[in-house]
Amino acid sequence: MMRTRPLKVALLGCGVVGSEVARIMTTHADDLAARIGAPVELAGVAVRRPSKVREGIDPALVTTDATALVKRGDIDVVVEVIGGIEPARTLITTAFEHGASVVSANKALLAQDGAALHAAAEAHGEDLYYEAAVAGAIPLIRPLRESLAGDKVNRVLGIVNGTTNFILDKMDSTGAGYQEALDEATALGYAEADPTADVEGFDAAAKAAILAGIAFHTRVRLDDVHREGMTEVTAADFASARKMGCTIKLLAICERARDGASVTARVHPAMIPLSHPLASVRGAYNAVFVESDASGRLMFYGPGAGGAPTASAVLGDLVAVCRNRLNGATGPGESAYAALPVSGMGDVVTRYHISLDVADKPGVLAQVATVFAEHGVSIDTVRQQGKDGEASLVVVTHRASDAALGGTVEALRKLDTVRGVASIMRVEGE
Amino acid sequence: MMRTRPLKVALLGCGVVGSEVARIMTTHADDLAARIGAPVELAGVAVRRPSKVREGIDPALVTTDATALVKRGDIDVVVEVIGGIEPARTLITTAFEHGASVVSANKALLAQDGAALHAAAEAHGEDLYYEAAVAGAIPLIRPLRESLAGDKVNRVLGIVNGTTNFILDKMDSTGAGYQEALDEATALGYAEADPTADVEGFDAAAKAAILAGIAFHTRVRLDDVHREGMTEVTAADFASARKMGCTIKLLAICERARDGASVTARVHPAMIPLSHPLASVRGAYNAVFVESDASGRLMFYGPGAGGAPTASAVLGDLVAVCRNRLNGATGPGESAYAALPVSGMGDVVTRYHISLDVADKPGVLAQVATVFAEHGVSIDTVRQQGKDGEASLVVVTHRASDAALGGTVEALRKLDTVRGVASIMRVEGE
Repeated sequence: MMRTRPLKVALLGCGVVGSEVARIMTTHADDLAARIGAPVELAGVAVRRPSKVREGIDPALVTTDATALVKRGDIDVVVEVIGGIEPARTLITTAFEHGASVVSANKALLAQDGAALHAAAEAHGEDLYYEAAVAGAIPLIRPLRESLAGDKVNRVLGIVNGTTNFILDKMDSTGAGYQEALDEATALGYAEADPTADVEGFDAAAKAAILAGIAFHTRVRLDDVHREGMTEVTAADFASARKMGCTIKLLAICERARDGASVTARVHPAMIPLSHPLASVRGAYNAVFVESDASGRLMFYGPGAGGAPTASAVLGDLVAVCRNRLNGATGPGESAYAALPVSGMGDVVTRYHISLDVADKPGVLAQVATVFAEHGVSIDTVRQQGKDGEASLVVVTHRASDAALGGTVEALRKLDTVRGVASIMRVEGE
Repeated sequence: MMRTRPLKVALLGCGVVGSEVARIMTTHADDLAARIGAPVELAGVAVRRPSKVREGIDPALVTTDATALVKRGDIDVVVEVIGGIEPARTLITTAFEHGASVVSANKALLAQDGAALHAAAEAHGEDLYYEAAVAGAIPLIRPLRESLAGDKVNRVLGIVNGTTNFILDKMDSTGAGYQEALDEATALGYAEADPTADVEGFDAAAKAAILAGIAFHTRVRLDDVHREGMTEVTAADFASARKMGCTIKLLAICERARDGASVTARVHPAMIPLSHPLASVRGAYNAVFVESDASGRLMFYGPGAGGAPTASAVLGDLVAVCRNRLNGATGPGESAYAALPVSGMGDVVTRYHISLDVADKPGVLAQVATVFAEHGVSIDTVRQQGKDGEASLVVVTHRASDAALGGTVEALRKLDTVRGVASIMRVEGE
């Protein structure tokens, strides 16, 4: 039962991802038509630089007036791959108002304004799909939202930024420092000229907000996500990690509290055991663990970025949205009914690895241990190294709240015998 | 917008999986209602032994008359977790005829009669979902059918049977022989009293047929799947594998030919490099690699069996089918439009590891090498070991067709200097 009138698609943005979307729509038109049940046609492409030659795209389709394109009224689906907050946000809501559904790869916008965008989609009876916004081609949104719809997700733990994973992997495997590894990532095209969004964890935090929201059926705003970048991770941290049988990854962690009454979301570098499957995720790859009541531990692994992988995710959504449209239905919208409180970092419970520079004299360990005990933070192991009147003390704790650990460190800094706190790193995945 | 009239579910089978489905439907009723948009109610449970006490299930719901249950006419969704061909097949088609959609975990039935069941579902405007039929809780059907709907899948390579993976992992890690490892798997409940379906590869072949059909949009029947069990894998094979930096796994492999004009599906033990992510899949876990044009290599990992994980997959499908029903729509049905020819094993191209027992005298290697060359099979490496007039020759080939390799082996057996072919194993995942 093939419908002959084509579904019309407006493409906003024709960069690395958009040009791949256009290419696949053209070269795989017959397959897409068969899978959707109707042909799908590229009806317009909004770009900033219309003079640029775009192979395989009819120049007559190219426009710089994205607003006019989404207002045309005959567009079935708008594919938004321009990124950033504006004009993407206005274009998406305008698309809904003019009878189009939207497929977006825009993590920053979804993390910041997901609730309002979902509300706009629902008000106009349109779909808003965004599989490509998190971890490129790796199916995550759909499995969380649909495959696990009958399960209770307790934890999402993942490597969701390829740039930082490339840098950390390089530091781990070569002993390079942060700057040297960043330079290589930049030279190879894995890092942008301004790497801030990646290395400071903004990109991963946006993804964490999106994943936490879907996993816990709760609105999680970008501001709710505790964020620490990885620019201060040193070669010494990797040496410490190795002594513990660990490596260091920038992790996005979304957790339901043990009592089930609240959730947290955070992004920070952390040590994880080499035996954990995430430890062996190399280069720019992404991988996400999802732990649920019934299904246990699932892992999803693949390329987390890049034009073609991201386009694959966009096109999967495009097929789904087109099918919904032919069915006269919409897919699952926002699910935020659980409305759990989102706790701050102080409530997060995990283990810590702390390196202290201390005076090399008797009684220091006893003093330090007393401070930990006074703050209710139980010590798992201590390692002492000393030379020339200076010494270092490495403490690994049992599980403690971030608030308790913070109080401990503050008190440690006040000890005369503690010269400085060289590093504090969380230990995850155990 | 919560509908108050509940959707009614009939559960066929209340064993390991069915009892978990019933338990979660009861304990998570509020969550399921919120996610579906309407309450969902267990309206009847068909069992073989009604006298057995089933905790948490109202005895008034229990019946031995499954046929009457699916014919009631007020059932929205039938969940079939009895397994086997009959009476499951008749019950499912009867359900469609009486206005119910179906969620099934029945891999054997889907592999054998998928096309007819899909046709029956479509004729009656009902859904047929079966995520739980392949790899338990791991989302595979939905990602292949929906997330990758805009991509071109070229290869599915996976460990889809937990029993055999447990046995092979045990043999690898302890040096145990097949029987000893099987005995331990049986004692621990990982293998059934009659392990034939698992160890002879029937279970994996059914899953391969289902995965190949969805991945290639082509009907792949169970008979189309080349199947070899793993009962003849020996400790010596593992020793050979280790010398090559490999381990041995029972793999399900669905491939599109390089020219794109045909597909193959097969299940057999194979060597894979230790560096391949599938090599580190331990115990009864499952993992599946999916290689596509745009998305590259994706991996899905998790528990491939067990009551709770399988129930998680069933409930995800139940939520989706209920949502479709409220929307007055159905989800994607069978997609077999590509209708590619399914080639036999002779057309499969891969590498081979062959162990020969040969006479320990000059010229044997030259004779053997000549036979390979005459059949167009190029040799990668040869290793010779000899003592007391007997010698072994281990040959690893470059990529060659199964037909060419078969001809080579037949000719080798006719050589006077070849006493026997000790083992032939394919090498995959490179």
